[in-house]
Amino acid sequence: MSRILVVGSVALDTIRTPFGEAVDALGGSASYFAFSASHFAPVSIVAVVGEDFPTEHREAFQRRGVDLNGLQTAPGRTFRWRGEYAAELGHARTLETQLNVFSTFHPELDDSHRGTPFVFLANIDPDLQLEVLDQMKRPQLTVSDTMNYWIARKPERVMEVLRRVDVALLNEEEARALSGETQLVRAAGQLVAQGGKAVIVKKGEHGSLYRSKDELFVIPAFPVSGLQDPTGAGDSFAGGFLGWVSRSGSLEMRVQRQAMAFGTAMASLAIEAFSPARLIAADGEEIARRVGRLHEMVDFEPEKSFPPA
Amino acid sequence: MSRILVVGSVALDTIRTPFGEAVDALGGSASYFAFSASHFAPVSIVAVVGEDFPTEHREAFQRRGVDLNGLQTAPGRTFRWRGEYAAELGHARTLETQLNVFSTFHPELDDSHRGTPFVFLANIDPDLQLEVLDQMKRPQLTVSDTMNYWIARKPERVMEVLRRVDVALLNEEEARALSGETQLVRAAGQLVAQGGKAVIVKKGEHGSLYRSKDELFVIPAFPVSGLQDPTGAGDSFAGGFLGWVSRSGSLEMRVQRQAMAFGTAMASLAIEAFSPARLIAADGEEIARRVGRLHEMVDFEPEKSFPPA
Repeated sequence: MSRILVVGSVALDTIRTPFGEAVDALGGSASYFAFSASHFAPVSIVAVVGEDFPTEHREAFQRRGVDLNGLQTAPGRTFRWRGEYAAELGHARTLETQLNVFSTFHPELDDSHRGTPFVFLANIDPDLQLEVLDQMKRPQLTVSDTMNYWIARKPERVMEVLRRVDVALLNEEEARALSGETQLVRAAGQLVAQGGKAVIVKKGEHGSLYRSKDELFVIPAFPVSGLQDPTGAGDSFAGGFLGWVSRSGSLEMRVQRQAMAFGTAMASLAIEAFSPARLIAADGEEIARRVGRLHEMVDFEPEKSFPPA
Repeated sequence: MSRILVVGSVALDTIRTPFGEAVDALGGSASYFAFSASHFAPVSIVAVVGEDFPTEHREAFQRRGVDLNGLQTAPGRTFRWRGEYAAELGHARTLETQLNVFSTFHPELDDSHRGTPFVFLANIDPDLQLEVLDQMKRPQLTVSDTMNYWIARKPERVMEVLRRVDVALLNEEEARALSGETQLVRAAGQLVAQGGKAVIVKKGEHGSLYRSKDELFVIPAFPVSGLQDPTGAGDSFAGGFLGWVSRSGSLEMRVQRQAMAFGTAMASLAIEAFSPARLIAADGEEIARRVGRLHEMVDFEPEKSFPPA
């Protein structure tokens, strides 16, 4: 159970879904990741907020043991995102992005951050992701996320990150856009052929798949009954994934397969409420129950009697 | 290993995909089903062809041991379908349908057909599917398929079939259209709530899911490297599913889960060639290897150490 570093955004989100809305709620990729991973291992955040960032949010992180030494406070306002989801809930429509203090953000890692063994590079400019990688001292496992915005603008830099990290997370649109392949197992294979060590494609209600040179692992989504807001599902997945690998202290595929299940369980919790509220409220029993249920959903007995000898 | 009856279409298909084309090739739901299921159990077809139906196709069925006593020959031409698939390969675009002898088809079951323990009602008019069910004597397991065409025109009859059979197969569009739910696990749940015993939703590259009152089972698609023509995937899935249940001689969920894997393997073979050529050429070893590979793709160890006591 080693420490995990996340570099990403801490934001104030205003979100509307068919099920409700939230105004200036705690959001951002690093927030979702940190609350998710905090159930498994200690987490440090490197991010920036403005002077208006509410003390109550800081306290929420601290109650989950999240280290905020790397959370800079810069003059100005906190990064704000406003978006809405239609009935399909597949993809957010961004109504407004105010970068604010985030526009000049450069991750500053102190010595303890640089030595952190597990790292999540959340969805930020791939140039910043590379800056972080350059500063790290021999991490055990690095995981990246990205988004279509960067794939459209800096595809070579996104590919450079993808080649340098151990596991690259993408959603299905991003995997298709970056690989040029429609079918997702092939898209992931293409990214591995282009130098990726391992790729996880997040497929929303269809679950996710992990592909490396030697491995193909597929897991369904956990079926939630009370979906409220899909924001943060991917970062929460990453938190469960890296959290479980850190907790297990092993990088073997047996552990990474379990980590896919823990990631899936955490993503399912995240989307049952606005902001990371459910991730904060969840307990270990609840997480373990969802992982067990996922196992029941996919388990079948291999068959030895066919074909008959 | 009891006999399986399939009632559906035997057709001549003209198909174009990005990978090639076929003209007047053997097709039809009953054909794909029969070749698929024939690897596991004896199969009888009830269908109709015209006087132009080639002898070589009859012989292909007979070489796989398929009983054609119920294959009527009617004056006129065989049912013909012409379609094409775009690069996405998701859904066929129908260019032409010539019902020909199929337009006046009524399934005629003789005594031996009526006593068949396993039945697949392929995609035909739900009124005809109900006619078949009315004629059957206490089958052990009945499975139905349908299509959007019937859901749009006869939704109550489609629901009546769905309630009367043991397992109803639908693709994702059909499940959404019939249930009114977007999310597929919920759509399946809705159909079960409306009286379905069990529902299988076929999700193309995302695999399939089985839902009943007490069960939720999800399996990915088998990743094929040489996709040629997606026609017949669903019927081939059904053939592997019912074939395995018949071969195992048990309806328990343990067997139905395996049957989902055999169905998935057969669907993956079907789409690797135009017409049922790959289903015909496949051998048991190849099928078993794909089922084994599917197991590897989903298998993970349940975790007992979390949360810590």
